Amino acid sequence: MDYPDTHHQDPSAPVRSGIPEHGRIPKYYAVKARLSALVTELAEGEALPTERDLALRYEVARDTVRQAIRELLLEGRVRRQGRATVAAGPKLEQPLALASYTEGVRRQGRRPGRTLIGLERFPCPERLAPEVGVRAGDPVWHLERVLLADDERVGLESSYVAVERVPRLDVDFEPDSSFYAYLREEVGIGLGRAGERIETVLATPREALLIGTPPALPMLLLHRWSHDVAGRPLERVRMLFRGDRFSFTTQLNS
Amino acid sequence: MDYPDTHHQDPSAPVRSGIPEHGRIPKYYAVKARLSALVTELAEGEALPTERDLALRYEVARDTVRQAIRELLLEGRVRRQGRATVAAGPKLEQPLALASYTEGVRRQGRRPGRTLIGLERFPCPERLAPEVGVRAGDPVWHLERVLLADDERVGLESSYVAVERVPRLDVDFEPDSSFYAYLREEVGIGLGRAGERIETVLATPREALLIGTPPALPMLLLHRWSHDVAGRPLERVRMLFRGDRFSFTTQLNS
Repeated sequence: MDYPDTHHQDPSAPVRSGIPEHGRIPKYYAVKARLSALVTELAEGEALPTERDLALRYEVARDTVRQAIRELLLEGRVRRQGRATVAAGPKLEQPLALASYTEGVRRQGRRPGRTLIGLERFPCPERLAPEVGVRAGDPVWHLERVLLADDERVGLESSYVAVERVPRLDVDFEPDSSFYAYLREEVGIGLGRAGERIETVLATPREALLIGTPPALPMLLLHRWSHDVAGRPLERVRMLFRGDRFSFTTQLNS
Repeated sequence: MDYPDTHHQDPSAPVRSGIPEHGRIPKYYAVKARLSALVTELAEGEALPTERDLALRYEVARDTVRQAIRELLLEGRVRRQGRATVAAGPKLEQPLALASYTEGVRRQGRRPGRTLIGLERFPCPERLAPEVGVRAGDPVWHLERVLLADDERVGLESSYVAVERVPRLDVDFEPDSSFYAYLREEVGIGLGRAGERIETVLATPREALLIGTPPALPMLLLHRWSHDVAGRPLERVRMLFRGDRFSFTTQLNS
């Protein structure tokens, strides 16, 4: 098997497609590099050859092809469509801004949506209290929703907010609408500064079930601590996005 | 085996530790949830019981324990130390700002460093040209360095910049120093606005080799397109950080 010419390639790709200069090249990885080049040539939704054909073409075992495809699936380069494996579109770009999920998805011509998993009320634990601006034991809401883009499940959002700030959340909030629009328009609370932290984690079995992803898919986890316009802690958010479908963007100014 | 009480837990953790309400709980995941609670009790650097002891304690196969530990390793909750598996410290927090890697690491009381992998000069490919402000075919530098924190390899950085902007890069730049400080102090180029994009990818075999990580570890990939103070495209950067060791932080203002 020969290797693709990867010298002086696109800087968005790993240098020399990640093939070590020294040491052995894992066979599956050489197949992955070939498939990756192949996927670049395909239109979105166009199918790859079958595993059987690819194994014949590259003269490797089908398990080797399967491992290469598995990594491309985890990275969102390809996706399953029925029995076929097809080229995936580019990852969605979510701006890191106080603009909501809704606005970010809309900006890319996708239809945002949310499905309610649960809204529950419980006594605030010690650690959460300073993040939502109440004392431990005071009642807080936990609002959990699946995030959709064009009816595809792409993430999972957990919001924690004090019951005293939004006492009627269980009565007059439409769970498929924007929580920030509700705060602004129904409750009269404006958002001020927020801090965010982004990390990569593995999907838990429950998360994988709710979002419909393969278990242990790398996810992007966005933590947010937001304040109201007066600077008082308002909301603690945990947003989990499919790592194969999302990226975050930001603009820096000197 | 019983399960840890995870109701109303810390919001930084997955809801109900990710155990599905419906459907079967994978055995390895139940072990992972127990181990995760155990790790929280340990001091940084303190060792977990052996796989053998854990298998006996939880009445599961050693392979089940191994799978649970593997996920905790990928997530950076534990790390290997010789033959032992020990509790890891918190992830480093890298601010999304024009402040350099150096400053971000220093702010957390760690000693930043860089090791040169290579500096090469090549004709600019079509796609890179607008990103570094030259015409295709004009010479560009590619500077590749491993990022260190306290001598631990934590990432890999590729910078692309036009040779005409920094013609003496191969002569008077110290490869273990800050490139931005060099631009500012030696070349007289100030940084203006920059755009960044963050995604999660799997380490390639070459990257895993250079950074010293397990292969296919989820990584955080930061793309940066920076401009000089006059708004002219200056540099294209690709920074890869160990997903088990890094998180990114940002402050948003309304």
